Amino acid sequence: MRRELALHTDKYQINMMYAHWVNGTHKRKAVFEAYFRRLPFGNGFAVFAGLERIAQYIAELRFTEEDIRYLSEQEEDYAPAFLEELLQFHFQGSLHSMKEGALVFPDEPLIRVEGTIMEAQLVETAILNFMNYQTLIATKASRIKQVAPNDTLLEFGTRRAQEADAAVWGARAAYVGGFHATSNMLAGKKFGIPTKGTHAHSWVQSFPSEQEAFDAYARVMPDNVTLLVDTFDTLRSGVPNAINTAKKLEAQGKRMNGIRLDSGDLAYLSRQARQMLDEAGLQYVKIVASNDLDENTIMDLKAQGAAIDTWGVGTQLITAADQPSLGGVYKLVEIEAPNGEMIPTIKISSNPEKVSTPGKKEVYRIIGQKGKALADYISFAGEEAPRNGVRLKLFNPLHPYMKKHVERYEALRMLEPIVVNGFQVYTLPDLAEIRRYHQEQLDLFWPEYLRKLNPEVFRVNLSEPLWTRKQQLIAEHMITDME
Amino acid sequence: MRRELALHTDKYQINMMYAHWVNGTHKRKAVFEAYFRRLPFGNGFAVFAGLERIAQYIAELRFTEEDIRYLSEQEEDYAPAFLEELLQFHFQGSLHSMKEGALVFPDEPLIRVEGTIMEAQLVETAILNFMNYQTLIATKASRIKQVAPNDTLLEFGTRRAQEADAAVWGARAAYVGGFHATSNMLAGKKFGIPTKGTHAHSWVQSFPSEQEAFDAYARVMPDNVTLLVDTFDTLRSGVPNAINTAKKLEAQGKRMNGIRLDSGDLAYLSRQARQMLDEAGLQYVKIVASNDLDENTIMDLKAQGAAIDTWGVGTQLITAADQPSLGGVYKLVEIEAPNGEMIPTIKISSNPEKVSTPGKKEVYRIIGQKGKALADYISFAGEEAPRNGVRLKLFNPLHPYMKKHVERYEALRMLEPIVVNGFQVYTLPDLAEIRRYHQEQLDLFWPEYLRKLNPEVFRVNLSEPLWTRKQQLIAEHMITDME
Repeated sequence: MRRELALHTDKYQINMMYAHWVNGTHKRKAVFEAYFRRLPFGNGFAVFAGLERIAQYIAELRFTEEDIRYLSEQEEDYAPAFLEELLQFHFQGSLHSMKEGALVFPDEPLIRVEGTIMEAQLVETAILNFMNYQTLIATKASRIKQVAPNDTLLEFGTRRAQEADAAVWGARAAYVGGFHATSNMLAGKKFGIPTKGTHAHSWVQSFPSEQEAFDAYARVMPDNVTLLVDTFDTLRSGVPNAINTAKKLEAQGKRMNGIRLDSGDLAYLSRQARQMLDEAGLQYVKIVASNDLDENTIMDLKAQGAAIDTWGVGTQLITAADQPSLGGVYKLVEIEAPNGEMIPTIKISSNPEKVSTPGKKEVYRIIGQKGKALADYISFAGEEAPRNGVRLKLFNPLHPYMKKHVERYEALRMLEPIVVNGFQVYTLPDLAEIRRYHQEQLDLFWPEYLRKLNPEVFRVNLSEPLWTRKQQLIAEHMITDME
Repeated sequence: MRRELALHTDKYQINMMYAHWVNGTHKRKAVFEAYFRRLPFGNGFAVFAGLERIAQYIAELRFTEEDIRYLSEQEEDYAPAFLEELLQFHFQGSLHSMKEGALVFPDEPLIRVEGTIMEAQLVETAILNFMNYQTLIATKASRIKQVAPNDTLLEFGTRRAQEADAAVWGARAAYVGGFHATSNMLAGKKFGIPTKGTHAHSWVQSFPSEQEAFDAYARVMPDNVTLLVDTFDTLRSGVPNAINTAKKLEAQGKRMNGIRLDSGDLAYLSRQARQMLDEAGLQYVKIVASNDLDENTIMDLKAQGAAIDTWGVGTQLITAADQPSLGGVYKLVEIEAPNGEMIPTIKISSNPEKVSTPGKKEVYRIIGQKGKALADYISFAGEEAPRNGVRLKLFNPLHPYMKKHVERYEALRMLEPIVVNGFQVYTLPDLAEIRRYHQEQLDLFWPEYLRKLNPEVFRVNLSEPLWTRKQQLIAEHMITDME
């Protein structure tokens, strides 16, 4: 089913499109780039996600008759010929993007849109909305994965997600970032993500006793039994009853999957439950834990010897609770002059980190002789690509005296062509491929960039021509100011 | 366009439905109630929202053939006759709810679902997903409204929202909570919310100079000009150029609406800009501010004499950044016994605040003789409704010795019938009506309950029969434990 998202945009985009149309500048070519300025959660990297959603959006982007009627009622200023043009509109520009699962860093273009200023402006809001959220959740999931690399990770957040799309696309982003399954069935159906879940407290409450509830559940789905043991009292009622049920299953030649703890002190309860299960000869029964978990609580629980095999992570992941937005922006970097020349543009700010980097750019990941990433390198798209054997100068754009040269390296071009002149040229990979790519990306980095707390900063360098042009443009604007 | 949300649920719901079906208990009547345990943001109240979305979801709830195929592939255990029953499924139960815009409090039922355990279980996840997010955002918006009651409030968060539904339904929730407009055009079209927006930095960057950009914009939309003045330098470039443009508009007999500040110190810049505008005789030009605002920054800026008329609030509102989830839960409160009797149920927890209150309940808002709310009063649905002249005992459920009696009061029944035996009996009010109702609700409360920081706690009382039954059930479960 097709979603009609043409109006999922800010009003100022439509106003600017109209203003360019009246001004006769709407066909002018423009290049915009989407990027973020700061990594979320104090992490050392972000995990790019959102491309599938963005590619679908671009491919289906049409205004309906109803949309046009709405616009005409909203703003009497809009000329009928403009609205007619919107009705014929489809995206005819080009879009380059990082691949989903890529490790990405601040101030490097993640998505590059080229087209008329009119079409490139229209798509800003939705692109940022999708990229910001999905990248945020994939990054959060990857952080959680870092602290429990060998455990099973389940995404359980739907009821606390920020509405339906967040639940469904967030489940996908979590899977991109290394989770194993989701509880959301719609995400399972849409994307082929494995789904997990057994029963709630209400199942137990709807029976006269916990034991009857457990036994009834095990009779119905004997091959998929994980029992929630905290409805009344975990260690005095839940675990002993679950052990009884497991024994009855054994008598049928079946093995219970696990028990789930959803309240109380998970370190203590899991160790006690593990001991009770083991003493009953149920070493194979796994312990699943849930209840407001995130990477910090999981790490602490593991440090305290919690006997937990599977983590159900809800609210903290699906809302990225400790930083619920990635501040991704979309900035004009080049605009066509009346003579047809493309002019790099800059946005100055009294906050130096908000000054944009001008020009249409490429991003290269520079891989050293040990097979590990040395730095990212951003150049104008028109510059020659760095290649092995050609000496490359890497310098800190804020402190250019901090520099080094490399000569033996591989330069991976990070931005893939997705849409070229309105045609999608990229085959969206399946999730298994995206997860593989994410793992390959992780393998390119030394562990010091990947740790959860105070990671080493991975350097994003500018080419000398790019750095020089940026300084020139800053200086020009400063001179203008002084006049 | 219809959204297919039957699978927007957790897998354990489907598993429990199936287990009840096999067990022969799926037609058993059950009552569930949705509520939250703690107010968000340290606020004194929450603003209920989400009902329109929930009512649509319930009305349209059907499994498609594709959904059924997916389920059969997912779990070989599911019997074909069960899947056939799902294909015929529609919601035939009843749903009562608070009205959107109502002020609501912890531990009182906001939504009550009655039906077969199978249907009442299925809808849990989606109801919580919609209620939790929309109530959270309406509450955040209402907090912001409290600190700027006479200013214009614009919702500008789409690009930072957690995916598309959050942007669109969040814009609606913000409007319920007192905002005046949104930038999201889809929300404008879907719900009739006023939309606002003018231009971005890219508009300015796409012209050779800021002055040309401003003049071009004013030529195109002379009746709706708000100029963003911080692309290069707010006070040295943006404001002087905007003043020039305003003077040109005056020469045509037009008046510029405003200027927008989006960076820097908003208190200082707005006062300086106000002075420059006033000195130019442009007292009528409004100042709009945006840039990571929330109720705390707005309050502080106002305290410092910021000359800001209109606040554009983005990220902090649309993600409820300081608490991005409302922990609403949905608990079984009554279940039909084999003899047909409805039995109140309880969920015990080692955390006392997580113990549920048993039984199907009503919520009354008790209004005293001064026309202000005294307390909320929850009773079993079967109890006689409190009414003026009948002495009512209000006591603190945690400390019953803290009690008082009232005799002259009005008792407003808060839960409205929305769906009765599968038929929607409630006409969804339009947003103007919902906003009016929200204002009426605010007017029922003394200001001490409404303040942003450390508000007085509004008391939610239980009837004596309800309180007594809860204590009995707790005691019964404790005795079981000791055996």
